Amino acid sequence: MYFVGIIKYKQMEIIQALLSHKTIRKFKEREIPDIVLEKILEAGIRASTTGNMQLYSIIVTKAQENKEKVAPFHFNQSFVKEASVLLTFLADFNRFNKWCEFRNAKPGYDNFLSFYNASIDALLVSQNIAVAAEAFGLGICYLGTTTYNAAQLIEFYKCPKGVVPVTTVAIGYPDEDMEQADRIPLEGVVHNEFYEDYDKKRIDKLYKNKESLQLTKELIKENKTENLAQIFTDIRYTKKDNVEFSKRYLKVIEEQGFMNHE
Amino acid sequence: MYFVGIIKYKQMEIIQALLSHKTIRKFKEREIPDIVLEKILEAGIRASTTGNMQLYSIIVTKAQENKEKVAPFHFNQSFVKEASVLLTFLADFNRFNKWCEFRNAKPGYDNFLSFYNASIDALLVSQNIAVAAEAFGLGICYLGTTTYNAAQLIEFYKCPKGVVPVTTVAIGYPDEDMEQADRIPLEGVVHNEFYEDYDKKRIDKLYKNKESLQLTKELIKENKTENLAQIFTDIRYTKKDNVEFSKRYLKVIEEQGFMNHE
Repeated sequence: MYFVGIIKYKQMEIIQALLSHKTIRKFKEREIPDIVLEKILEAGIRASTTGNMQLYSIIVTKAQENKEKVAPFHFNQSFVKEASVLLTFLADFNRFNKWCEFRNAKPGYDNFLSFYNASIDALLVSQNIAVAAEAFGLGICYLGTTTYNAAQLIEFYKCPKGVVPVTTVAIGYPDEDMEQADRIPLEGVVHNEFYEDYDKKRIDKLYKNKESLQLTKELIKENKTENLAQIFTDIRYTKKDNVEFSKRYLKVIEEQGFMNHE
Repeated sequence: MYFVGIIKYKQMEIIQALLSHKTIRKFKEREIPDIVLEKILEAGIRASTTGNMQLYSIIVTKAQENKEKVAPFHFNQSFVKEASVLLTFLADFNRFNKWCEFRNAKPGYDNFLSFYNASIDALLVSQNIAVAAEAFGLGICYLGTTTYNAAQLIEFYKCPKGVVPVTTVAIGYPDEDMEQADRIPLEGVVHNEFYEDYDKKRIDKLYKNKESLQLTKELIKENKTENLAQIFTDIRYTKKDNVEFSKRYLKVIEEQGFMNHE
């Protein structure tokens, strides 16, 4: 019974931590102790990885000077400079390829699947690190801008071939306490046995709460659109931008040596 | 002081849980209670998601019949049929596109960046779910085969356009207690401020432990190669397979409507 009690306590703490996640975009001017950051990174790299190849690297940006230099690549969002640390996650086959070459083994990892596997590795580590950071009372924010400006980040961080930036996580001590973001109901994203496609009735039901939030009403007013969906399509994530950033990222993937399919 | 104590206990539990991860490939014949699975999924979908768009879906495969039908797409690894549940994570823009269309908003998400953003969303959720499952004493195994046979999985699971399978996690009660997999030292994957490329001396140092493991020696003998690196390049992840699977996955991405860049 004692053992069961311990397990249940542990379950509750971890599940509660995951359920409590909030993105933080305002940080205190307070450094993360090295020993804490190291523990977070150590917990991170226990994440599953393709064939235990560890196809990722993590660049730690701590120096204020460097945070300021990369801020423009992240659309100058103010919290990029204010975070204690930026962790940039790289899909990295360079280290593994070098190991192979030094061992008289011929790597065949200059293709899209290898890039994608390395992306998976980098992202699983990033999420483990996000969870670990929050366990220490830190706040995190993922930066989608990393893929948009991957070429500039490669140049700045001096990444060799075989390396592509995938995402960045800004970390620091929270200086805000926002409401938790909404999610559509669980049944809206979970399919039992087979994919169940969405008709209008189901979509209406799933998005009802999101569309009725006070925050949504304010956003619609502010953005002068008919509804929330148009804020995404016409303002935040436009076709024009997506096409431009798609071309750029595909070019980076090719330039970094991941598109050889002969 | 009491508060500090609680926080520290919580930290310790979560970090310890992350540090203790082991991949499990042998499961007990025991079902996961619905209430536990639901809690795991709920914790999962609190993960960060691109612009709170939740660009993913999760297919739950619980029926024995369906586990057996998808097993061939996962190279008939025995634990695929034996796991209590398979969770297949999909990059999913279909639901979001439908919402936009029903709201008189024109989605521009038929491009590579949108696919990649949806992949990121799916993978962050998958890792949150892996952590949550382990908190309940469950074991997990990621299946890399999902990208290899994405076309077959799309057909089987009846996925519409805008949906691409990204990864699968097999979950169940562990029926083995293996040693934890090795990792190269933390300093081998973490770069301070700038990417520090690897020379032979550094590679030798980073891979020394991995190469000296008893398991490695047995694998080399069994596979009749000169060293561990050749097991990866010549047997496990060959150029021929990678090129074939790259072409297949790129074709799936295109067929599912994510390669329109006009």
